[in-house]
Amino acid sequence: MYLPLASFVYLFYVIPKFTYAGKVLVFPHDGSHWVNMKVLVEELHSRGHHVTVIRAADSWYISETSPHYKAITVNVEAGGNEDFYRLFVSEVIRIKRSNGSAWTRLALDMELKDRFFELHKKVCEMLVHIFESKELMKTLQEAKYDAVLTDPVNGGGVFLARYLGLPMVFNARWTVHGEAHFAIAPSPLSYVPLPPSELTDQMTFFERVKNMIFYNMRMYLYKQVTAPHYSPLSKRYFGPDVNYFSLFQAADLWLMRVDFVFEFPRPTMPNVVYMGGFQCKPARPLPQHLEEFVQSSGEEGVIIMSLGTLIGELPHDLADEIAAGFANLPQKVIWRYKGAKPPSLGNNTIMVDWMPQNDLLGHPNTKLFVSHGGTNGIYEAIYHGVPIVGIPFVFDQADNLSRLKAKGVAKILDVSDLNTEIFKKTVQEVLNEPSYRMNMQRLSELHRDQQVKPLDRAIFWIEFVMRHKGAPHLRTESYRMPWYSYYSVDVILFLIAISLLVLLVFSWLLRHCFMLCCKRKVKSD
Amino acid sequence: MYLPLASFVYLFYVIPKFTYAGKVLVFPHDGSHWVNMKVLVEELHSRGHHVTVIRAADSWYISETSPHYKAITVNVEAGGNEDFYRLFVSEVIRIKRSNGSAWTRLALDMELKDRFFELHKKVCEMLVHIFESKELMKTLQEAKYDAVLTDPVNGGGVFLARYLGLPMVFNARWTVHGEAHFAIAPSPLSYVPLPPSELTDQMTFFERVKNMIFYNMRMYLYKQVTAPHYSPLSKRYFGPDVNYFSLFQAADLWLMRVDFVFEFPRPTMPNVVYMGGFQCKPARPLPQHLEEFVQSSGEEGVIIMSLGTLIGELPHDLADEIAAGFANLPQKVIWRYKGAKPPSLGNNTIMVDWMPQNDLLGHPNTKLFVSHGGTNGIYEAIYHGVPIVGIPFVFDQADNLSRLKAKGVAKILDVSDLNTEIFKKTVQEVLNEPSYRMNMQRLSELHRDQQVKPLDRAIFWIEFVMRHKGAPHLRTESYRMPWYSYYSVDVILFLIAISLLVLLVFSWLLRHCFMLCCKRKVKSD
Repeated sequence: MYLPLASFVYLFYVIPKFTYAGKVLVFPHDGSHWVNMKVLVEELHSRGHHVTVIRAADSWYISETSPHYKAITVNVEAGGNEDFYRLFVSEVIRIKRSNGSAWTRLALDMELKDRFFELHKKVCEMLVHIFESKELMKTLQEAKYDAVLTDPVNGGGVFLARYLGLPMVFNARWTVHGEAHFAIAPSPLSYVPLPPSELTDQMTFFERVKNMIFYNMRMYLYKQVTAPHYSPLSKRYFGPDVNYFSLFQAADLWLMRVDFVFEFPRPTMPNVVYMGGFQCKPARPLPQHLEEFVQSSGEEGVIIMSLGTLIGELPHDLADEIAAGFANLPQKVIWRYKGAKPPSLGNNTIMVDWMPQNDLLGHPNTKLFVSHGGTNGIYEAIYHGVPIVGIPFVFDQADNLSRLKAKGVAKILDVSDLNTEIFKKTVQEVLNEPSYRMNMQRLSELHRDQQVKPLDRAIFWIEFVMRHKGAPHLRTESYRMPWYSYYSVDVILFLIAISLLVLLVFSWLLRHCFMLCCKRKVKSD
Repeated sequence: MYLPLASFVYLFYVIPKFTYAGKVLVFPHDGSHWVNMKVLVEELHSRGHHVTVIRAADSWYISETSPHYKAITVNVEAGGNEDFYRLFVSEVIRIKRSNGSAWTRLALDMELKDRFFELHKKVCEMLVHIFESKELMKTLQEAKYDAVLTDPVNGGGVFLARYLGLPMVFNARWTVHGEAHFAIAPSPLSYVPLPPSELTDQMTFFERVKNMIFYNMRMYLYKQVTAPHYSPLSKRYFGPDVNYFSLFQAADLWLMRVDFVFEFPRPTMPNVVYMGGFQCKPARPLPQHLEEFVQSSGEEGVIIMSLGTLIGELPHDLADEIAAGFANLPQKVIWRYKGAKPPSLGNNTIMVDWMPQNDLLGHPNTKLFVSHGGTNGIYEAIYHGVPIVGIPFVFDQADNLSRLKAKGVAKILDVSDLNTEIFKKTVQEVLNEPSYRMNMQRLSELHRDQQVKPLDRAIFWIEFVMRHKGAPHLRTESYRMPWYSYYSVDVILFLIAISLLVLLVFSWLLRHCFMLCCKRKVKSD
């Protein structure tokens, strides 16, 4: 019998509301990337999904035991231990600090290149270890996961998803070949600046030349670093015709850690979902000693400084210049720092091993954030509307900060010529010129004005992929055409050739007709 | 005093939850486009916004009085009266029916071209009438609207928004120059089929040639039809340097009547918001006589047929072929038809002047929808999971249906060779081959599985633009660069020139060094 009521029940949301305990296999990227992958893992767990995380035996960030996930530890040392990171970062700072010339920056690039080469090699070792371990593969296959969630900055999750034949969701900002959009979305180099060019979306001719050069250099560099590892692996396990990069492009969904209050507007694709700022949340009350310190700042307010988890300390002279700069300010300062206390540290500054950064940024007394320019901190600052003084060191930090500078919410310091005077002057300018704060408050308003919280959106789409076993209707593979087809060069040449042919035939006919007429005329004459 | 609780209150949704009674000025496109614009107007009104709609004196669709909006009637006859439409459509059917040769189709194109030429001319007359009427302009300016909502298939709202300096939101699928994405999103012709090419996103070489030709023809045709009207108007009111098409590109937001269960995946931009299917809603109970008729169909079920509001009747012979086709089927048929009863009409078929299409499509007994391929009906069919037999006549109907055909949920009939046998065979195939229904049910599931209803999403974004007086952070104007800059042709040529120069200098140096060496050698010898 037909029940008219039935149609009312079958509303838009019948499917999404169906609670679905899925099984998600996560292959994260170790280091600071884990900080935001963990947010997704914890949220998935809190919604009743079962999460399994794959980690290397020596992982510094990804702990083996957690209430939120089950860890599978692969008995390979991936070089992600604390000592290695610390050494790497101190070397980076030394090079950047020595001077800002092109040669030292080249040395830094080479240093990074070797580091990435090593990283991808280790990931491939992990993969081979997994693929060749019959027991582990059996466990993974029998678990019947619904999807793989991974960070495409390395190829671990990508290869694993393909091997297990599972739908794949990216938590992405980078792929093995650079900025993630470039892998699937049209990215005209005339207005899409490629990191680390530090350009904006409005470029002069010579800036566009720079962007083009950076693009080609970056693609070359990354291929050098990744192809020797991933290419043979792809051929070995998936056949000789499979290009390893096409495995990355095959992701069902790209959860992109981007929001357009931060990023310049650019072309995108239907299977890109933006979740920039998904880790942000309202501030909680501060611990009492911090609250008292913050309150003691009065009208002048508080500056907070953190250079991220990687950069716990600085060279003594640099730390001393910064401390002296702070000492001369009327504000109070909370500085997350693990090194020795600099001699010039003022009474207005406290140093802490760790701080509740989000809660401090959300405190109404906080006037300024001194940051290295990592995306996690940047989004928290945008969320709470706090302007930034940036000291970039490595990776995407300089480019992140240059975006904020272009929006009038940050100033950037160069570590190679940083001294007390420059530091103090820059901090004072951002504090005293109201536009920085006003612009940041506007970004904050725009960022908060979303119909669905970025984190809820991200989880919805992970669940969508699990429910529907992928999202093929959102995904095109057309960007994998040869470039001359993609850009219609073959079609244009064909049409030009046809036009020329028609023109030729026509002129030949015209000429012959003309000659025929002339002949007749001569004859008749 | 600092209140820790305050930070909890300032949640993500403080701004969106703030109820805001805005003022929206709507310049719709008359005809079937008004059917879906009305959905937005009514929803805006139901949320407390004040809506003003601009209409021509002779508008057929847009009534002067409504509980949902205040109408401003411009004393110009825009040619949108019922007689004109009926005449136009019957002419189209006559041409399409006569035969399917290229020449008759060309005649149809010319007919359409003249019709569009006239349409845009009338819109410009309306605009001049508005701009030159001091009283009307004073009313519009003093009303202090928050945004203009318009359909960019004509330039009325676009010019008005610019004149009044207001933020602008599009309810879009077409602009004056064709498919709306093409105006702002990269649209590689290698995989983005341009209507009315009836191609898919996977094309052979010659299909890509066809797509390229269609693109150029269409651009040429539309410029012929629009430039003579809009270009002088733009120069007259906004200055000699303003290109009229750039006024369209300047929209803050494009609410696109597209969903990727229907459209092929293609590049998009951050200020494009998809709301395909926003008019869909669950079915309500049928009137008793219809419910009884539907129930009487039993296991075999019901077929419903409607060719849209424009095509109320068909040539007698065509109607008779269709009626005879239906008469031979075991299903019951409900046919929305205003013409004379065809002689061969079977006992299983009832003809109605109007029908509750959405409620019928949502009835579990409904097995098939015979449709002209307008988007409103198509989205309702997708929403309710009912497969389609399409009889396209004009505009985007053939392209809409070809998309459904590519997804395996529809078959298409050509009106030029339609007869009883072909009609019956096609209907039976879609009824009896389970894949059509299964595929449509899958599209329906995907389409319904959205976190936010398309209509709520559309209203949110209209309100967003009102709240923030535009959405500049989502909008790029970079596609307005000259093509050689946009595609980096200048940069590539520059880099090639530099490389050649370096090569030349290097080879010149090498040659001179070599000659110098030779000379010395000769000397030393």
